[in-house]
Amino acid sequence: MNDAVVTPWEVKGKLDYAKLIKEFGTKEVDDALLERIKKDFGELHPFLSRKIFFSHRDLDWLLDKYEKGEKFYIYTGRGPSAEVHLGHLIPWIFAKYLQDHTGAEFYFQYTDDEKFLVKGTENLDFYTNMAYENLLDVLALGIDINKLHVFVDTKDIGRMYKLALNVSKHVTYSTVKAVFGINDSDNIGKIFYTSLQSVLAFLPSVEKGNNIPCLIPCGIDQDPHFRLTRDVAPKLGFYKPAIIHNKLMPGLTGDSKMSSSDLDSVIYTTDNDKTINKKIMNAFTGGKSTVSEQRKEGANPYICPIFYMYSYLFEPLDDKLNEREQNCKNGNLLCGECKAELSSRVIKYLKNHRENREKAKKYVEKIKNNA
Amino acid sequence: MNDAVVTPWEVKGKLDYAKLIKEFGTKEVDDALLERIKKDFGELHPFLSRKIFFSHRDLDWLLDKYEKGEKFYIYTGRGPSAEVHLGHLIPWIFAKYLQDHTGAEFYFQYTDDEKFLVKGTENLDFYTNMAYENLLDVLALGIDINKLHVFVDTKDIGRMYKLALNVSKHVTYSTVKAVFGINDSDNIGKIFYTSLQSVLAFLPSVEKGNNIPCLIPCGIDQDPHFRLTRDVAPKLGFYKPAIIHNKLMPGLTGDSKMSSSDLDSVIYTTDNDKTINKKIMNAFTGGKSTVSEQRKEGANPYICPIFYMYSYLFEPLDDKLNEREQNCKNGNLLCGECKAELSSRVIKYLKNHRENREKAKKYVEKIKNNA
Repeated sequence: MNDAVVTPWEVKGKLDYAKLIKEFGTKEVDDALLERIKKDFGELHPFLSRKIFFSHRDLDWLLDKYEKGEKFYIYTGRGPSAEVHLGHLIPWIFAKYLQDHTGAEFYFQYTDDEKFLVKGTENLDFYTNMAYENLLDVLALGIDINKLHVFVDTKDIGRMYKLALNVSKHVTYSTVKAVFGINDSDNIGKIFYTSLQSVLAFLPSVEKGNNIPCLIPCGIDQDPHFRLTRDVAPKLGFYKPAIIHNKLMPGLTGDSKMSSSDLDSVIYTTDNDKTINKKIMNAFTGGKSTVSEQRKEGANPYICPIFYMYSYLFEPLDDKLNEREQNCKNGNLLCGECKAELSSRVIKYLKNHRENREKAKKYVEKIKNNA
Repeated sequence: MNDAVVTPWEVKGKLDYAKLIKEFGTKEVDDALLERIKKDFGELHPFLSRKIFFSHRDLDWLLDKYEKGEKFYIYTGRGPSAEVHLGHLIPWIFAKYLQDHTGAEFYFQYTDDEKFLVKGTENLDFYTNMAYENLLDVLALGIDINKLHVFVDTKDIGRMYKLALNVSKHVTYSTVKAVFGINDSDNIGKIFYTSLQSVLAFLPSVEKGNNIPCLIPCGIDQDPHFRLTRDVAPKLGFYKPAIIHNKLMPGLTGDSKMSSSDLDSVIYTTDNDKTINKKIMNAFTGGKSTVSEQRKEGANPYICPIFYMYSYLFEPLDDKLNEREQNCKNGNLLCGECKAELSSRVIKYLKNHRENREKAKKYVEKIKNNA
């Protein structure tokens, strides 16, 4: 981890997730916890059995509460800087699993303010509009809209500002400097912003008039914000939110994280079939430089974004995934074949996703006009 | 000025206003400018002829615009941390003069968020409620409510936040550190806050769809905020607001500024007659320690808060004020007599003010409930 950087605004270097658990001071999602989740929620999502959600804070505490009959709610969000890509879907699909098995209310925050503050453009409306565009992707996953609470920071600030002020009063510049690596030439909006990301960990408790446990599924890179949220919580009389962290979906270029800052690394949900196919066929793999070498020595699935895409989203059956892993390692499966198969699965998946996105447009228009 | 500190949150030491003009890089309100104001607005307010409004930025530019028929608006505000005292009234009375002579729209901001962030208490609602309480004092001055636009930050943040974000993106931590003397252990809300104080210097231009000149009458201690506002203005495509600064009303204890942080220094508009009388009779003066000494050597009106109260608010006639000054200096007027006269004037003034405050309550309730 010496050369890896993991903050909400930058993921750089090769990630060692076991080391991240130690560095961040989180807990492993271990087999005992998985057993308990299976018992409490009825089944394990592949994201859990495959340890894609690998780390947590106070999930055991949350399950204590849940087992005693105390409802929790789910909170996650999205910085709407661009179209949604496959990596973004992980926490949202997981939120749907949680919602389906527990009936939890789901709070979703679009941080258009944050993206405006950290990106180059002067056009705030771009990010606000992108929030509603991105909302289509959450709805396309089949989230129960009767239990969905959408917040777009610039639209809903009236409901959020007082709580953000209360948070901000307990956070010093020294702290954000230490937690996020912010420096003196950063703008004061970026410095304040983390206050907003704490709000939905507390707001339902304020609005309902009693403390409600909160579970945040999110990429591990978002942990610094919520570490700070958890520090502030007892000072304001709230529960600390529980967090469950997912590993970041690797980029097609072999980077640790699929990210819009490298367009070749990314498959957007709105990419057309041709683009999807081209990106996948051009992707980095764990393969050898020649066919004969690969047949003889096998390839390495553990550095291969194609294999991870199967593992994260495109091979639901564990047997089949194991078989693919073995065939990769023993040289039976060549990268071209593996990529072509993935391409057709992604194309099929996103065709369906885009149809669902279309159907959600009416609802998003309604939300947008009510804001 | 070596040991004087002048920031929005602290005024310490003896103020030398001539030196402040040099240090802050503002311009003196000189006789030529006064002539021009008299010509443009029809008459000079005593605050101008007596140089209580003594310093400005770009007021000549604003008059250029005004003389060409371009309307300006007035913007000032109040940090609602406590009851209003006499010193607070200065910019508001001046705003009324401006409004009466130019028909300008008047934007008034109550910064309940700021006060919450810089003060000890955890109760934000205290400051929000105090804002509406303080609004009574503005209305009691006879401001034209049809041209008054009241903003309470936590209530009106929905209308202000986008512009605050735009400002904040152009202000670094280094800048607020240099301008306000903020440090690393300050909270991130306080660091961000100045963005909010810029908003009303631009919002009318955004909402009307074209740039409108803005004039800010305020105490010189507020200049750091607006210096920053003026730096940001051209980056966002707005006019720089013009500013006219008043000297701070000295405290009854002899401090440079009447301030609620020293209760003996302050006369609140809501003080009862007995309290007013007691505070004035106990005030520091420029008098000598014995009557005979004072009869012989005279007193010093220029260090005397009692004399300044006459000069600021309680002696409208220049002749009478000069007479008092002379009689003070030559020992004809003793402090007890001068205080007793002032006490009866202040009591009369505030009796009328409190009656007007009462009458304004219905309107404030309406604004409060619409927020």
